Amino acid sequence: MIAVLSGGVGAARFLQGLLAIVPPASVTAIANVGDDTVLHGLHISPDLDTVTYTLAGAIDPHQGWGLAGETWHAMEALERYGGTTWFRLGDRDLATHLYRTQRLRDRVPLSAVTAEITAAWGLDLTLLPVTDDPLHTRIVVPDEGEIEFQEYFVHRRHDVRVSAVRFAGAVACRPAPGVLRALGDADVLVIAPSNPIVSIAPVLSVPGVDDAVRRRRDRCVAVSPIVGGAALKGPADRLLRDLGHEVSVVGVARIYRDQAAVLVIDEVDAALAPAVEAEGMRCVVGPTVMHGPAEAAALARLVVEAIG
Amino acid sequence: MIAVLSGGVGAARFLQGLLAIVPPASVTAIANVGDDTVLHGLHISPDLDTVTYTLAGAIDPHQGWGLAGETWHAMEALERYGGTTWFRLGDRDLATHLYRTQRLRDRVPLSAVTAEITAAWGLDLTLLPVTDDPLHTRIVVPDEGEIEFQEYFVHRRHDVRVSAVRFAGAVACRPAPGVLRALGDADVLVIAPSNPIVSIAPVLSVPGVDDAVRRRRDRCVAVSPIVGGAALKGPADRLLRDLGHEVSVVGVARIYRDQAAVLVIDEVDAALAPAVEAEGMRCVVGPTVMHGPAEAAALARLVVEAIG
Repeated sequence: MIAVLSGGVGAARFLQGLLAIVPPASVTAIANVGDDTVLHGLHISPDLDTVTYTLAGAIDPHQGWGLAGETWHAMEALERYGGTTWFRLGDRDLATHLYRTQRLRDRVPLSAVTAEITAAWGLDLTLLPVTDDPLHTRIVVPDEGEIEFQEYFVHRRHDVRVSAVRFAGAVACRPAPGVLRALGDADVLVIAPSNPIVSIAPVLSVPGVDDAVRRRRDRCVAVSPIVGGAALKGPADRLLRDLGHEVSVVGVARIYRDQAAVLVIDEVDAALAPAVEAEGMRCVVGPTVMHGPAEAAALARLVVEAIG
Repeated sequence: MIAVLSGGVGAARFLQGLLAIVPPASVTAIANVGDDTVLHGLHISPDLDTVTYTLAGAIDPHQGWGLAGETWHAMEALERYGGTTWFRLGDRDLATHLYRTQRLRDRVPLSAVTAEITAAWGLDLTLLPVTDDPLHTRIVVPDEGEIEFQEYFVHRRHDVRVSAVRFAGAVACRPAPGVLRALGDADVLVIAPSNPIVSIAPVLSVPGVDDAVRRRRDRCVAVSPIVGGAALKGPADRLLRDLGHEVSVVGVARIYRDQAAVLVIDEVDAALAPAVEAEGMRCVVGPTVMHGPAEAAALARLVVEAIG
């Protein structure tokens, strides 16, 4: 059994590689929902959908989000009204949000709706939102205050300085059914190459989850999302810098050393392996950049073999 | 100034004819919202949209609802999940519901949102929901109890016997801003050729509206939606029969005689004019079937000329 703490794009690609080398039914992905938002009254779970669409082979490979071959008639029509169109929802993608929203209104928990959605796409892994309760990542911007995550991430294209990140509601969240069991039962725990600040931290913010991971530290491998001192995608590097972290695999080691025994870093950072080990993590060096499914599978193999 | 009590398709066509013969800014349509429903978390106002799309020249002319040239990608994708697809929402039409829902969540009243939507379509008439408050038409089916209007109308294609119709919430509804003034100020009031039971009755069920119409009875013209003993479209004839009304222009006269001084009936029913007058309404006979804009304009002229 393998449990993977997961954000969006990076985790989805890693999971795709993982499912190529182990039985899908042995994998549980525990995904961030701090990015979830309600737009037009629809409940949108970007990370759950990115993982689902990627594993179903349906993701738009150029964007890394949304569905391949998508049409945008609803968004184009929404422009007539001056509606909110900076968060692009494709016509087919809308169906996922329509379905999820209706089911949540029917009082079905998000984890159960997610199981219905992944089953509809024919996926055999278990994909769990870390919690069924409301969890909202808020970004604190100097001289402005808190803004919503998607306002920061999509609307402003994460092009603002950040002074703090907060996970609103976390204190009242319970782990979704199956989360703590998956963490307790896993032979291997993986912290996917996702953003430590806004993808993995909200997962760990749900009471009980961080403790459950720490208890399994000796079976836990983190994959650095920082390669050569930069993020491959997204604002992880700027966020780390803004929040006072070192933007390097050493900085990542300092963030994850209490949760994971091993840090997998890219070959370009090989020279930093001793510094990582000096932070108390075993360091595994290999190719971590997932150009495609083959590289993703190779990375997954490296990660799984790093434990036992 | 002309005020028109309005349902969906029949009223929309009549209004199209009316706007061809009078200045659009002189027309206020007061529309039924008892059909409104929430599906997938989206607030759907079928009658408001049918009127808007028709007057904008954007309606699907074959269906009489929805947008011409529509695509159905969201609905097709929703089938994967087994979601609710019997209420067909086209991709571009969805934009209207997305926008309306977001604005209502922003605490903008439905009447103000409707004004935004009609303005976006370049319409110059005033289209008012009869109320900004929740009003729900419920259909009572023998041996089953109450069902929602769209469950009756769309899902079951109005192919069930009906023992009663109820307007849930009506007692607590207030007329939307402008409704009572439009009824009081109008030189001509029109009860459009809409379903008396499930389109016009819910409009009149909002406290104050029926009284306001009755006070203007001498300026009020109703157009019979029953032609030759049948409804041109929809279940008006069966509903009238199920609820104990005579399915004829005479039956319609008995329903509207307290609200309107004049009933316009079709030429095929000319022989019933004396019976209509015996019910206490002046009867105007003319072509009422709106095959296209020319016939709709002729009917509108007949209606306006019936007063004054």
